[in-house]
Amino acid sequence: MEYVEHLSVEKFIFYLLIVLIFAKVFGHLAEKIGQPSVLGELLAGVFLSTSVLALVPSTEGMVGYETFHLFAEIGVVLLLFEIGLKTRIADLVKVGPVSALVAITGVVFPFMLGYFSIIYFQKFSILSLEANMVELVAIVTGATLTATSVGITARVLADLERLQTKEARIIITAAIIDDVLGLIILGVVSSIVSSFGSEGAGEVHITLGSVAFITAKASGFLVGSIVLGRIIAPRIFGFFSRIDRNNLVWGMAIVFCFVYSYCSNLFSLAPLVGAFAAGLVLRETDQIKTIDSGIKPLSHFFAPIFFVMLGAAVDVSVFNPFVSENIMVISVALILFAAAVIGKYVSGYVVYEKGVRKSIIGVGMIPRGEVGLIFAKIGLVHGIFKIDLFSAVMAMVILTTFIVPPLLNWLFERESKENGLTEKTV
Amino acid sequence: MEYVEHLSVEKFIFYLLIVLIFAKVFGHLAEKIGQPSVLGELLAGVFLSTSVLALVPSTEGMVGYETFHLFAEIGVVLLLFEIGLKTRIADLVKVGPVSALVAITGVVFPFMLGYFSIIYFQKFSILSLEANMVELVAIVTGATLTATSVGITARVLADLERLQTKEARIIITAAIIDDVLGLIILGVVSSIVSSFGSEGAGEVHITLGSVAFITAKASGFLVGSIVLGRIIAPRIFGFFSRIDRNNLVWGMAIVFCFVYSYCSNLFSLAPLVGAFAAGLVLRETDQIKTIDSGIKPLSHFFAPIFFVMLGAAVDVSVFNPFVSENIMVISVALILFAAAVIGKYVSGYVVYEKGVRKSIIGVGMIPRGEVGLIFAKIGLVHGIFKIDLFSAVMAMVILTTFIVPPLLNWLFERESKENGLTEKTV
Repeated sequence: MEYVEHLSVEKFIFYLLIVLIFAKVFGHLAEKIGQPSVLGELLAGVFLSTSVLALVPSTEGMVGYETFHLFAEIGVVLLLFEIGLKTRIADLVKVGPVSALVAITGVVFPFMLGYFSIIYFQKFSILSLEANMVELVAIVTGATLTATSVGITARVLADLERLQTKEARIIITAAIIDDVLGLIILGVVSSIVSSFGSEGAGEVHITLGSVAFITAKASGFLVGSIVLGRIIAPRIFGFFSRIDRNNLVWGMAIVFCFVYSYCSNLFSLAPLVGAFAAGLVLRETDQIKTIDSGIKPLSHFFAPIFFVMLGAAVDVSVFNPFVSENIMVISVALILFAAAVIGKYVSGYVVYEKGVRKSIIGVGMIPRGEVGLIFAKIGLVHGIFKIDLFSAVMAMVILTTFIVPPLLNWLFERESKENGLTEKTV
Repeated sequence: MEYVEHLSVEKFIFYLLIVLIFAKVFGHLAEKIGQPSVLGELLAGVFLSTSVLALVPSTEGMVGYETFHLFAEIGVVLLLFEIGLKTRIADLVKVGPVSALVAITGVVFPFMLGYFSIIYFQKFSILSLEANMVELVAIVTGATLTATSVGITARVLADLERLQTKEARIIITAAIIDDVLGLIILGVVSSIVSSFGSEGAGEVHITLGSVAFITAKASGFLVGSIVLGRIIAPRIFGFFSRIDRNNLVWGMAIVFCFVYSYCSNLFSLAPLVGAFAAGLVLRETDQIKTIDSGIKPLSHFFAPIFFVMLGAAVDVSVFNPFVSENIMVISVALILFAAAVIGKYVSGYVVYEKGVRKSIIGVGMIPRGEVGLIFAKIGLVHGIFKIDLFSAVMAMVILTTFIVPPLLNWLFERESKENGLTEKTV
């Protein structure tokens, strides 16, 4: 057995301390200047990252990285569970059709913008790609721009106490539909990429039938698990609460959340989608108050770890314009960023209902995250992306993450001022 | 960089699920048969261990072991923090002198019994040690028997709702003094062991001065941190609660706990000792109710992981009497176990105060844990222990852990019956 350096308990507690203190201090400072606290947590992460203070294990391969990465994942799972606990299923069903429209537009537009950006880069020799590669690179780049990452927006809406607005419901529902669409794109892109290098490279070996199957499987799981949960959950939690009012109900609520997360992962959906569904289901039980009081402290302990680690993934050295190689990466990143912002922003404007603030929906859909990076990694591993394009995609993801908290905050504030009141629905 | 297999989020959630479900089910079954739920959690661990179902990464080197080990440590830290939050400093000071007496007796007696067990084993050829090794082996074995591990007892007392009894206070205070004594013994034993092999092997290179220094440093930290905390904590938590009544107070309470844990580790004390001290200090702030309501769910999430992983450390194959090599290990383990039980049990009988149930204190001091294993590992690494004696010490630690929940339960129940009432002080 080879020797692997271990993270000592002492060091682990030290890291946790640093993360929690920085999260609280920066979160508070963000609030002081009228911003959502999550923006402070992201910035705290940047300061702690390997490229600045190097106080947390933020880079893959570092001792302790795995544990912190898993803590962070549990954090975003519990956050979405908590948000699910505050959301009525009926409200989501109402916004279902309009959310689907937002999701589809928000996938098609960014894809096209990403695709044509690469074509444009090639034409004006910003990137020098081999002629037979352009098409492939353009498709994978487009794919990296498609999937919204709901964690940031959900947290901003919670920070601003706007979870109960119609816009919030549309955004969250659309982001979940987005995850299903992401699966389809992943299937298509994987098929294209894996044929790369072999004869007939670039051919799509995916049929309409298999797309329908992926969609049906993922949607079937979501609908099925919620319907089944609605029948079973009230009974089992009624039973648990008769045995033990607090501890058992808390414990089993977490178990319930993790079962849903695990299953959603089995159906190739993100674990946080399952956690959200679990929250929706438990929202309808009589034990919701007890559950919520037990989950809140857990989510408040874990979730900042997610946002700090997200910020800590930033490699600030890429943004140093005095390094000549960076100029190209920054230029490409900025153009992709523009494509990412515009592509999702327009998706807000397909909302046909009146009284809904379209710009808020458009901005709420902007953050990209892990799914985008998964596409970028597939591209890198198969030799389709070179490290420069990969870095540019990373930078694009980071920029979309950081821009949303202040933008959403500004939109809500502006509107409050226009209405001459601080309309916060709770 | 060499490739290290990673624990995927999916697998991690799966492990967490298994641990939580088994902990809840076995804990509930234990309660059904009138036992503290922690006994069920320990047994759940045994079932999940590598040697039975192999459903959790319970062995060092397994993928995910590190993360689960750290989760478990955070679990026992938060448990002792929570117990500290329920304990008045004044009550501990009152039992200080008697607890010191219990702690000292509970170190001296087991050491002597362990020491003479080895001499006896050698005399009757149960172990075949080289003549010049006997003394050394006897000293290290004695040391493995000295330190009480407070986690189990504290949890049993909590399960039985007996934390507010005088016996509980004496046990916990004595266990903390024990940790300081353990440091001294560690210093002495390390000095003896490190001289082993060189000329003048077995000589003690430790002076009274250095013992006094170790003691003063550790006790000084404990007293100093509590006194300082009593002055500072009410002010800073008053300040935090004016900014944000819930979230910030919860977050900073955890930070406070981790700062104390980390510092106690710097002073070579167990992290859980610092966490307990932090709890004591915050008990005296005005925000205690808010803090307690936020820490409880966290501790209830993490602590079972500690007890399940403790149970999962058991290698049941060692206890198989049909394997001939095991017979010797089992015999030695049972004799050491008897020494461990008797040595601590008598420590309860030095309590001079009236109305205190001496047997409960004696039993409460029995569990051994990590510190004992640290001594055993030092012995193993330096070639003083062979694997058979090491396994026997492991088995002794495990047996002391498993015997305490049913024994304490039985003592409290018997007494309730004698008094004809269920006297539960809350």
